[in-house]
Amino acid sequence: MDKILRIDVGQTGLPSVKTEAVGAYAGLGGRALTSTIVGKEVPPLCHALGPENKLVIAPGLLSGTPAGQSGRLSVGCKSPLTGGIKEANAGGQAAQVLARLGYAAIVLEGAGKSDTTYLIHIDKNGVKIENDQRLKLLGNYALIDEMKKRYGDKVACISIGPAGEMKMASASIACTDMEMHPTRHAGRGGVGAVMGSKGVKVIVLDDAGCETRQPKESEAFKAANKVWIEGLKKHPVTGGGLPNFGTNVLMNIINEAGGLPTTNFKTGQYAGASKISGESEAALEIKRGGPATHGCHRGCVIQCSGIYNDANGNFLTKQPEYETVWSHGANCNIDDLDTIAMLDRLDDDYGLDTIEMGATIGVAMEAGLLKFGDGAGAIELMKEVGKGSPLGRIIGSGAAVAAKAFGIERAPVVKGQAMPAYDPRAIMGMGVTYATSPMGADHTAGYAVTANILKVGGYVDPLKSEGQIELSRNLQIATAAIDSTGMCLFIAFAVLDQPETFQALIDLINSFHGLKLTSDDVTALGKSVLAIERDFNARAGFTKEMDRLPLYFKREKIPPHNVTFQIKDEDLDKVFNW
Amino acid sequence: MDKILRIDVGQTGLPSVKTEAVGAYAGLGGRALTSTIVGKEVPPLCHALGPENKLVIAPGLLSGTPAGQSGRLSVGCKSPLTGGIKEANAGGQAAQVLARLGYAAIVLEGAGKSDTTYLIHIDKNGVKIENDQRLKLLGNYALIDEMKKRYGDKVACISIGPAGEMKMASASIACTDMEMHPTRHAGRGGVGAVMGSKGVKVIVLDDAGCETRQPKESEAFKAANKVWIEGLKKHPVTGGGLPNFGTNVLMNIINEAGGLPTTNFKTGQYAGASKISGESEAALEIKRGGPATHGCHRGCVIQCSGIYNDANGNFLTKQPEYETVWSHGANCNIDDLDTIAMLDRLDDDYGLDTIEMGATIGVAMEAGLLKFGDGAGAIELMKEVGKGSPLGRIIGSGAAVAAKAFGIERAPVVKGQAMPAYDPRAIMGMGVTYATSPMGADHTAGYAVTANILKVGGYVDPLKSEGQIELSRNLQIATAAIDSTGMCLFIAFAVLDQPETFQALIDLINSFHGLKLTSDDVTALGKSVLAIERDFNARAGFTKEMDRLPLYFKREKIPPHNVTFQIKDEDLDKVFNW
Repeated sequence: MDKILRIDVGQTGLPSVKTEAVGAYAGLGGRALTSTIVGKEVPPLCHALGPENKLVIAPGLLSGTPAGQSGRLSVGCKSPLTGGIKEANAGGQAAQVLARLGYAAIVLEGAGKSDTTYLIHIDKNGVKIENDQRLKLLGNYALIDEMKKRYGDKVACISIGPAGEMKMASASIACTDMEMHPTRHAGRGGVGAVMGSKGVKVIVLDDAGCETRQPKESEAFKAANKVWIEGLKKHPVTGGGLPNFGTNVLMNIINEAGGLPTTNFKTGQYAGASKISGESEAALEIKRGGPATHGCHRGCVIQCSGIYNDANGNFLTKQPEYETVWSHGANCNIDDLDTIAMLDRLDDDYGLDTIEMGATIGVAMEAGLLKFGDGAGAIELMKEVGKGSPLGRIIGSGAAVAAKAFGIERAPVVKGQAMPAYDPRAIMGMGVTYATSPMGADHTAGYAVTANILKVGGYVDPLKSEGQIELSRNLQIATAAIDSTGMCLFIAFAVLDQPETFQALIDLINSFHGLKLTSDDVTALGKSVLAIERDFNARAGFTKEMDRLPLYFKREKIPPHNVTFQIKDEDLDKVFNW
Repeated sequence: MDKILRIDVGQTGLPSVKTEAVGAYAGLGGRALTSTIVGKEVPPLCHALGPENKLVIAPGLLSGTPAGQSGRLSVGCKSPLTGGIKEANAGGQAAQVLARLGYAAIVLEGAGKSDTTYLIHIDKNGVKIENDQRLKLLGNYALIDEMKKRYGDKVACISIGPAGEMKMASASIACTDMEMHPTRHAGRGGVGAVMGSKGVKVIVLDDAGCETRQPKESEAFKAANKVWIEGLKKHPVTGGGLPNFGTNVLMNIINEAGGLPTTNFKTGQYAGASKISGESEAALEIKRGGPATHGCHRGCVIQCSGIYNDANGNFLTKQPEYETVWSHGANCNIDDLDTIAMLDRLDDDYGLDTIEMGATIGVAMEAGLLKFGDGAGAIELMKEVGKGSPLGRIIGSGAAVAAKAFGIERAPVVKGQAMPAYDPRAIMGMGVTYATSPMGADHTAGYAVTANILKVGGYVDPLKSEGQIELSRNLQIATAAIDSTGMCLFIAFAVLDQPETFQALIDLINSFHGLKLTSDDVTALGKSVLAIERDFNARAGFTKEMDRLPLYFKREKIPPHNVTFQIKDEDLDKVFNW
């Protein structure tokens, strides 16, 4: 991981390929690396789909090592959805493989030509690029089937579906999982549209003949990894709730807490919650022969995923995540898991962010295009997105644009990006994160559900304003650091509650890289990443006025707690005072 | 004009009506009044279609008086298109009639209900409101025909078409002209959507029994008005070019100058320009029996308009303005006047901004939805807008949203609003105005074509950066003042070139209101209006980074001069340093 691969798609003929030393970017991984490159190299006022934008794909500091849970791949660029800087990350196999191939990052840059469908193949011998029009507008599933035929099932793929090719602002970038399904997505902010704007359809990574990355201090690394894995296994969330029921273990919990956005954020509880809960989902998966405990990449300890088969026992999709089940389920009043799983499959196949899609369908329902609860209608609507019809283009542009097109106020967005599965009024720490994250509304940017609801890392009353600023600040800092390691964010549960697990993470980094970082250094890294991101956004014209929820969250009370968002603007402006 | 009419549509049952003294807003008219009320009463971070926004409709300081050319009506609100403050103004009869009824402003406020179609009737006896569902989704022409049946042809109407009812961000507000045609529009920024969000379809103004407003100093006023009218009649633009050929006299001039945006701002000259020029248009109008010299309201001296009949000699639309002929013509490569006139008719009927629509059709052509030059396709596309189909909603949302939905970079917009008929690279003073006006890209906000091309008020080379900042600054200040008087902006030609005509304007205001203003006071008024508007935008989160043209205007050279936009960012930031 000492080199950067730059692919300039703006050259005459095929793109140019340049491998350069990591240089000034040495020591950075994941989000720290993507945000640093974007912050330094992309003019903040450029158009996200224009030649000046770059797509940076980077494994984390520990990717490709034997460290448990180190499988996240970061993708960074200027976002077509928010207009600000974006880092979205994904699980699957790609981060590990890319790291073993020795690349700290791939940078796609230059002016995309119309009508190219590049296949980039990278192995230990180098990089090959072809313009393969046969791949044009293939869904991710058909595309990956074709890649399997050509390259076998040991490769990892990073790809876009038709949504990315059509440059929709909700388009995701898919990474293949252990079974070579394109189910793990860098979902948010339209990163897939930026890949599409560069004319790149798929990057095939083959690490045959490459070694697992070796730590500088082997024994210390092994010891730390043992403590690390034990820590993840013993925590009730990472060792119990997540493996047993997946992320959707949250459905009943958040519903019970009255913070489950229902009917396009009109109420905080959904009558159909139990029908679509993680418990119901896992039981159904097991019944249909798919495991309900399963990892998205080979280094996964937590195993929060599963396989969702259809009624005939055939693979339909991976276990839909909580946010997906919420967005297409509670938010749209759809209480049928098969419908939700089909929507998840379509999201993955077209290459779309499931959160943005569910929120946007909710906006379309609010606008009267279809009724809340109309599952068949939601599937038809999603197919319009895949076709790229005018209606599909509205939906594929996300909740903010859809609300503008349909002339309605109630778009649950910040900085143009849809809110995830936690109502910011009933879980106010999440509201602070939504409002202030440089990413737009993003639950992963500072997951205050921990202390607000799960009582992990302490407790802060979700219905009161006290303590939320500090909570969100500390989580945003910690997350920015974790996103740079290549670690799955779910490690946070164990890390927040178990000091020895946190120490083991630091020991992993230190022993691998031969460093002597302390927890203060980790905090400093997180702060520096956030500072880079906020600087980019400031130069793109973002002000504190963008660090606000839509006004209606201050006006409309959400049942059952009947609360509005209570955090004062001047307090939101203190999140980044450190 | 000593009272303000407030209509709160958020009350149970029919809207409440309150007439209050003008109070703290005394002495303000037109844009000064709308921007002051919006700046003071509308929370800048509210949603433009939400209950906190207000629509302010105000005649100018001289509206309803015998002063020549004083027929403009200002409409102000937070804009659904730009997200900033908006003042759009229109000709027609409404300003004069509203002023004679004694209202300094009508303010529509409160939370609009779904599915109301209010008809507000105002005469000397007061205000009557009914919810008349029979008017729902009527085009402006059918609506006004119905109003004529009910109220005769001596009233003036302010109305929205289906686009405003559907809350499209390009929706305009129509004012009737002397012939009771709904042809005079407060076009820009989606003001019609705000009227639609309040559930108001039409305001009928009947000044029967009301007096023309009387000056405080009658003889001085008469004398000033004589000098004033003589000044307008003797200037070659207001006394020659405009009455003879209308605003479209500019087509050949701007084409010759190489600043006519063609093919979605790709070149600065259009091969078909002469076919759609003001000269051709006037000749065709005369041939078909419509006058080519005609006013939009009874107090008009310049008579820049005309009547465009179809091939059978039947009324089709008013003489399409230069910006309309450009936007639907050169910008879309349509060189057929009948097609352009039909598009103008549809714009007026649906209630849409002709500039935004033409620019958006250009974006759709760029995106490949239809071919440049496809006039029949453009008409079909416009009909989609009228129907409110998904495609129509994309187009009706304006050029910025359409470009986002279609995934293309080349949207010629600033602050979300489409540029008018002057390429900012080849006429750089206009580029400064587009970039910096608080209204978004707007030619009327500081019409640098005067000195850049027409050599009115001096000469500043349009292809060089020198002098453009000062030019735009001075014009923006002057315009903000003129927009507050109720005067048509075309007076500027005579006022800039003829000191005695400028003095006559000040004398008109002074003698009418019993004031002793000097030219310094006029400048101060303009500056104060701009300061209010910029303060609103700053509180809405606007920064200097929004005072920029899209990056591609710095990247792509425009033929025939092969220039990019040369004004430096730091110089743009000096426009409002005074």
